[in-house]
Amino acid sequence: MTTRRKKIFEGKGKILYEGPEPGTLIQYFKDDATAFNSQKKAVLEGKGVINNRISEYVMTRLNSIGVQNHFIRRLNLREQLIRELEIIPLEVVCRNVAAGSLSQRFGLPEGQALPRSIIEFYLKDDKLGDPMVTEEHITAFNWASTQEIDDMMALTLRVNDFLTGTFGAVGITLVDFKVEFGRLWENDFARVILADEISPDSCRLWDAQTNEKLDKDRFRRDLGDVIESYTEVARRLGIMKEMPTVIQGGLH
Amino acid sequence: MTTRRKKIFEGKGKILYEGPEPGTLIQYFKDDATAFNSQKKAVLEGKGVINNRISEYVMTRLNSIGVQNHFIRRLNLREQLIRELEIIPLEVVCRNVAAGSLSQRFGLPEGQALPRSIIEFYLKDDKLGDPMVTEEHITAFNWASTQEIDDMMALTLRVNDFLTGTFGAVGITLVDFKVEFGRLWENDFARVILADEISPDSCRLWDAQTNEKLDKDRFRRDLGDVIESYTEVARRLGIMKEMPTVIQGGLH
Repeated sequence: MTTRRKKIFEGKGKILYEGPEPGTLIQYFKDDATAFNSQKKAVLEGKGVINNRISEYVMTRLNSIGVQNHFIRRLNLREQLIRELEIIPLEVVCRNVAAGSLSQRFGLPEGQALPRSIIEFYLKDDKLGDPMVTEEHITAFNWASTQEIDDMMALTLRVNDFLTGTFGAVGITLVDFKVEFGRLWENDFARVILADEISPDSCRLWDAQTNEKLDKDRFRRDLGDVIESYTEVARRLGIMKEMPTVIQGGLH
Repeated sequence: MTTRRKKIFEGKGKILYEGPEPGTLIQYFKDDATAFNSQKKAVLEGKGVINNRISEYVMTRLNSIGVQNHFIRRLNLREQLIRELEIIPLEVVCRNVAAGSLSQRFGLPEGQALPRSIIEFYLKDDKLGDPMVTEEHITAFNWASTQEIDDMMALTLRVNDFLTGTFGAVGITLVDFKVEFGRLWENDFARVILADEISPDSCRLWDAQTNEKLDKDRFRRDLGDVIESYTEVARRLGIMKEMPTVIQGGLH
């Protein structure tokens, strides 16, 4: 849209622009889909619009239950105003059901319920292939403090409870999800705040009746109907009733 | 030697036989060398004899500083009497200097000092390739309790201090090492006890002056002189003055 504003960072799925006032950024949701550390790429028309809306919905409701996050307000179809944070270079994964790399690592059949929810940390580093890391690595290399790890784990478990309830209520099993966190500095104190997005790009979501996948695995595994599935998630959450038109219109 | 006694377990480098009294086992050190999850194999004549002696030396001294372990006494060239433990299915790795899989995972040059000692846990499961695991996995799948993890970490740091001092005093840098632990049940209470072996098979040991490798990496990386290097470690520790003869004799 406004092409003159300053681009702060471009990631695989989103672009961050300078915001209208200090301490804010504009988060732009792209239609680009990538998987397997960018070895697989595609453009899925309308994905950015859906994820912007689903993430708005989830982040707004998380804010209302006291899980502070970077979301301020949605600006338009593809953009939201967010708080500028000092991003912690970790992906925090929370798993309820065995799937993906956890299934592979431990030889567990996909779909097997885990004994309890498991939280994992991965280093955000494309060159290294986002390796899994432990608290020992995180603190030794100073990626986050022990207190910040504790805060991220506690917040992630709250997000898990909320998302499990939210999706469960509309017939969707929350298999796992990934979140990121950042530091919000106030004077000399940094609070840990939820960042990034929560969408079918960052969650594994299975239809509770059929176990049909309604998430990014449709893209990763060439299952087709990616946008249709993302739209179905939004539809069940009661948002984006206008989506079909938007997608047909191919808005950018 | 005694062929009629009951074999309890045969691993890649050692065999466990039933011991002379309940609660004891005989640990036999083989000459077999394996690496890369047994993809690489060889017989290194005399290795078992050297490792039996080095492990005896280290375990005895650890016992004397209060790091309880399974070692009772050496029986002969290749065998030692040990306490029977319920082995915890984890390999505990402690690293002081970047090397091996840590270097690969984080793109750190081998030989770079770490900001502090780092402890890692790996699941002992050949079929899965001994994957790295976190405290979350360990407790969720009930491989060990939080208290046992804390005990293993505290003991491993004590072993690290002791070994760093021991090897440092004879011109050897302790780069990293692997240990295993087991539970010693007394009534209904299980104590965590150091098990397995401590030898050039389980440590990375570099000559402090030249950084020459004196450990199993000589086998992994086809550097030659494996037995000569193990013998050099034993020689510097002041043990096995008779070793050259033993090795020349090719005792089994």
